[in-house]
Amino acid sequence: MANSIYRASILQSYSQLLFQPCLSNKHCVPKKTNLLCFASSQLNPARSEVSFCIGTHLIPHPNKVERGGEDAFFVSNFKGGVIAVADGVSGWAEQNVDPSLFSKELMANASSLVGNLEVNYDPQILIRKAHAATCSKGSATAIVAMLERNGTMKVASVGDCGLRVIRKGQIIFSTTPQEHYFDCPYQLSSELVGQTYLDAVVSSVELVEGDTIVMGSDGLFDNVFDGEIVSTLAAHSDVVEAGIG
Amino acid sequence: MANSIYRASILQSYSQLLFQPCLSNKHCVPKKTNLLCFASSQLNPARSEVSFCIGTHLIPHPNKVERGGEDAFFVSNFKGGVIAVADGVSGWAEQNVDPSLFSKELMANASSLVGNLEVNYDPQILIRKAHAATCSKGSATAIVAMLERNGTMKVASVGDCGLRVIRKGQIIFSTTPQEHYFDCPYQLSSELVGQTYLDAVVSSVELVEGDTIVMGSDGLFDNVFDGEIVSTLAAHSDVVEAGIG
Repeated sequence: MANSIYRASILQSYSQLLFQPCLSNKHCVPKKTNLLCFASSQLNPARSEVSFCIGTHLIPHPNKVERGGEDAFFVSNFKGGVIAVADGVSGWAEQNVDPSLFSKELMANASSLVGNLEVNYDPQILIRKAHAATCSKGSATAIVAMLERNGTMKVASVGDCGLRVIRKGQIIFSTTPQEHYFDCPYQLSSELVGQTYLDAVVSSVELVEGDTIVMGSDGLFDNVFDGEIVSTLAAHSDVVEAGIG
Repeated sequence: MANSIYRASILQSYSQLLFQPCLSNKHCVPKKTNLLCFASSQLNPARSEVSFCIGTHLIPHPNKVERGGEDAFFVSNFKGGVIAVADGVSGWAEQNVDPSLFSKELMANASSLVGNLEVNYDPQILIRKAHAATCSKGSATAIVAMLERNGTMKVASVGDCGLRVIRKGQIIFSTTPQEHYFDCPYQLSSELVGQTYLDAVVSSVELVEGDTIVMGSDGLFDNVFDGEIVSTLAAHSDVVEAGIG
């Protein structure tokens, strides 16, 4: 239900099919896969509730283009909308394990579980059930954001994927990465030594009309400063242009 | 109610009376008032619900010691606990207005309204009602955090006061300052040109046992890097020592 504060929110993003690579990025040379979702809120004219309008953009690391990178994501229009990103941990390649398999299966499982009654539209529980259902060998960082119709966006994150909310040209909400030490993030794993949903940072933020959300793997946030994200958005009236530019 | 994730949380901080100045700070020379609250969670043995154990520490700018600085705060043990900071905008001094009056009255009003039924334990509504009740001339930034017994800490912030949550030696949640331009933060004001509760960033984070919360004005976060806050906490087993050290 909308009120004077939370009139509506619609997420918009770049239309790039799941796992489809795109190498165009004039702002930086990605050190690894850059995955990002852009979201801009607007009033849903049909009813005074909020929802995401979702699109995505995927830029694999140049060395990982052939298999589409190691990131994965899914989007959903269930309830207010769901966006999620997982980043396969590269180190598995040294053990002849494709690092993308775990992240892709994790996101596929999460996508199929979004409406599950036991998940109860809780991003932390979604991570728990998706992780439990994933059989591939490997590990991944993951972030899930779920928008309630009243404007509350709930976020659960394990590791160094991230999310920014931009309002009136400035970042007003950021997630913070978790890592054991440099370049070793918290991660959901096929092995017992990894982290679980219990290690997720769970937060939420109240969205308002006009907000833009940017979600991505560390490949985005390690290569593009927050100020560059904001200025890129400001320089484009259309978020699709902003993502490709 | 506690569960396996959110067993309990108790906020601990430095015991320094409201507005009592302290100039000891070996880490930096504050460019303005440093106000901070430290919080460390632990199980409440009496019942399996969470609550804050609260203390504070106030370091006025050396030039503002005589009137106790321009920051104000209040703490409360209502429900899970409430902590709040306001920072009087210095520019009012140029108009012969004591910048501390507005922030102090704002916090005093907020303190008296914590249990108000219309506030409904909502930090944004608390800001609205406290702002409406404040008669002093001036303006201030403000942040309010309210802990639910189930471990959810709700935060509302207007301007550049801030809050960090430290878990297992790393920051896992941060607020982000809002400003019109450099050194001109969003602010609640006695004048119509200021911001209101509608401009607050409203967020929440799920706390777990062992979390430490640091809240303060920009005088803290502008002078002490996040890494210094974390290392200061790590170097002391007692948060009271950490705050004074």
